[in-house]
Amino acid sequence: MTEPITRTACVARDAADPLAPLRAQFTLPEGVNYLDGNSLGVLPAATAARVQQVVTEEWGSGLIRSWNSAGWITLPQRVGDKIGRLVGAKPGELLVSDSTSVNLFKVLSAAAQIARADDPARRVIVSERSNFPTDLYIAESVAAQHGLTLELLDIDAIPERLGPEAGRDVALLMLTQVNYRSGRMADMAAVTALAHAAGALMLWDLAHSAGAVPVDLNAANADFAVGCGYKYLNGGPGAPAFVWAHPRHAERFRQPLSGWMGHAAPFVFEPGYRPAPGIGRYLCGTPSVIGLSALECGVDSLLAAEPLGGMAALRAKSVELSELFIALVRERLDDSGLTIFSPLDTAQRGSQVSLAVPAEGCLDGYAVMQALIERGVVGDYRAGDGSAVEPHLLRFGFTPLYTRFVDVFDAADTLATVLASGEWREARFMQKGAVT
Amino acid sequence: MTEPITRTACVARDAADPLAPLRAQFTLPEGVNYLDGNSLGVLPAATAARVQQVVTEEWGSGLIRSWNSAGWITLPQRVGDKIGRLVGAKPGELLVSDSTSVNLFKVLSAAAQIARADDPARRVIVSERSNFPTDLYIAESVAAQHGLTLELLDIDAIPERLGPEAGRDVALLMLTQVNYRSGRMADMAAVTALAHAAGALMLWDLAHSAGAVPVDLNAANADFAVGCGYKYLNGGPGAPAFVWAHPRHAERFRQPLSGWMGHAAPFVFEPGYRPAPGIGRYLCGTPSVIGLSALECGVDSLLAAEPLGGMAALRAKSVELSELFIALVRERLDDSGLTIFSPLDTAQRGSQVSLAVPAEGCLDGYAVMQALIERGVVGDYRAGDGSAVEPHLLRFGFTPLYTRFVDVFDAADTLATVLASGEWREARFMQKGAVT
Repeated sequence: MTEPITRTACVARDAADPLAPLRAQFTLPEGVNYLDGNSLGVLPAATAARVQQVVTEEWGSGLIRSWNSAGWITLPQRVGDKIGRLVGAKPGELLVSDSTSVNLFKVLSAAAQIARADDPARRVIVSERSNFPTDLYIAESVAAQHGLTLELLDIDAIPERLGPEAGRDVALLMLTQVNYRSGRMADMAAVTALAHAAGALMLWDLAHSAGAVPVDLNAANADFAVGCGYKYLNGGPGAPAFVWAHPRHAERFRQPLSGWMGHAAPFVFEPGYRPAPGIGRYLCGTPSVIGLSALECGVDSLLAAEPLGGMAALRAKSVELSELFIALVRERLDDSGLTIFSPLDTAQRGSQVSLAVPAEGCLDGYAVMQALIERGVVGDYRAGDGSAVEPHLLRFGFTPLYTRFVDVFDAADTLATVLASGEWREARFMQKGAVT
Repeated sequence: MTEPITRTACVARDAADPLAPLRAQFTLPEGVNYLDGNSLGVLPAATAARVQQVVTEEWGSGLIRSWNSAGWITLPQRVGDKIGRLVGAKPGELLVSDSTSVNLFKVLSAAAQIARADDPARRVIVSERSNFPTDLYIAESVAAQHGLTLELLDIDAIPERLGPEAGRDVALLMLTQVNYRSGRMADMAAVTALAHAAGALMLWDLAHSAGAVPVDLNAANADFAVGCGYKYLNGGPGAPAFVWAHPRHAERFRQPLSGWMGHAAPFVFEPGYRPAPGIGRYLCGTPSVIGLSALECGVDSLLAAEPLGGMAALRAKSVELSELFIALVRERLDDSGLTIFSPLDTAQRGSQVSLAVPAEGCLDGYAVMQALIERGVVGDYRAGDGSAVEPHLLRFGFTPLYTRFVDVFDAADTLATVLASGEWREARFMQKGAVT
């Protein structure tokens, strides 16, 4: 039998952690153990001053002149290039623009055109049933528009669907690399190769990957990607998102959101649309300057890890944090009824661990999470259908930039206390509100 | 012969102006006479503190909880309702979301579906040749997608095109109420009635109207509208835009950008899309919280005029400012070659005055504007094709919330100086950069 894990041991791991100094980059509220960076990242200390500078100096004093003098006009490319360093996109290949949903519409529309041009018999977009809903909603719309079918499968059924015979009608495989519920992570290179072998295009949503795990879009030979600015990239609530198209596709077709910022010469004010070269045509309207500036600070907080080993080092720590949490859950919550829903194989798990609430019994996962939050441990709750396949979940995101080993210990410890005390049964924890 | 207009007289008009105190709401840079609020509005004094609060308190401390506790989730509706008060939309009818270009895509797509359903023989979208390019680019895309034709006409040719016979194939008339180049303003009620008489739908872009002139979408019985947050609404660079659909249309069709925030129950995470009731389905991705919060301050700066007569009072002052400028140009710049390109009829002019640079002669409008800017008078320059129909323009926007009569005097005076001295001929004023 192994010795119980102690808080002291966790404190010692933090003291020995070469990445520990990165935490000082953030303004973290007192008394909050924040394990929800997979939903909304924390505030980098640099952001408030930078946003203030944009507002008071660049906007307030520079006014219209700042489009040039403060470099506003190149922000989508500049911040895009920085994100590119985190996800294996070369400079000039990736842009920050709009929201993830809007960017999905752009790349799905382009993919639908490419599929039609290359092999009109391919009429199916395949995705995962438990993909994040906005991906499915946008795919539903694009599919309807282009006469395609959206087919939703369990993730384990996808390889068969892309088999030599079965895959012949598949135009596109669209997956979020790390599932928002389970934290299950796909092998990007292997799945992309599977899609390509079937003759299909591969679109990745990196919402829970960018800044969380190492990603190399070019090495994986992916076709399209989108991602979110406000989760692991710490860009702030509703931060602009990003979009990438492999250079072999970027200029093949227009994407339909042909706003003036994606025009080859936006300031010539021509009446007819001429798409900008490369990924430039994936811009649409005037970029959100304040949002982009805040996002840049968030991305910089990740790039600060480059001298310490970058995403590979962050990933190694993320795995250690997650493994510690799993060990603590097993040690202390074995009789709680909660089970580990995320894959146990670290190679198949992103930077979160989800615990499943049993379908049988009286445990109310929502109330448990509310009671945890009241004690300062902020994870989140995701309702399922109550089945074993899609159970109700408690999600805990481990963001190695700022999560400490001691935070993981305290979270598991607090969860054990909340369950042992039964305090989650108090009526005030049952009142539901919208959570994102 | 009338007496020359004096600076002293303008100072006196400011002293007697009941709207003058509204200027104190803004943080205006020293030494800048800003007449470009039609391109990027100025910074309200309240914005910096509000943005700081959103960043440090709501995001930094509140983190994910602020979606509920700080009301982030209802920001698109809350700010939308405030803008609604400026443009004649009822509470719940108008939303802040995305960019003007993206919102145009939504409403144009809905309009195309409605036209097809109601009268498939209507295959033409009519717009103005010199409409703002992003409107034309997006319309070009939507038209191609729906098998429609985009027909661009001179504004004066539009009534004939919508005549009893000629108008039978027109699905939609899309106009920007105040033309970005000329400042020419359409009579919203009359033009909407013209479109409806022809059996066409009417879509208004209010980019240069909202916060500049009184607008009443419901009274005009318009069908769709979009507008910009960063011009007269003072929302900051790249502020989110707004979208309105008449309630008779809002639920008739889905718009294709079916992101999760437009779902009937976004936090139930269903795999299938069910559009939210009413205008709610025109939301798409996660809203830009910082941008929306800054925009709210800008909109509040206009609502502060309500006790002083609101948009009607602001409009009256805007007309006075513009008339003063025109009088000064006539008095002092009669021999400069510059001519007044904006309509002289105040009922047909928005809140800007554009001066045309003669096609003949050596006057370089770009250099003149650069020389003006160096002297602290910030208008902007819009190149044309050099013809009398689309000349090169010097644009001056008069935003009655903060522009004073003395500012108008000084602008005309400085322009006269720049021209009389010939200083605009210096090589450094000729170097071109991107301007928005």
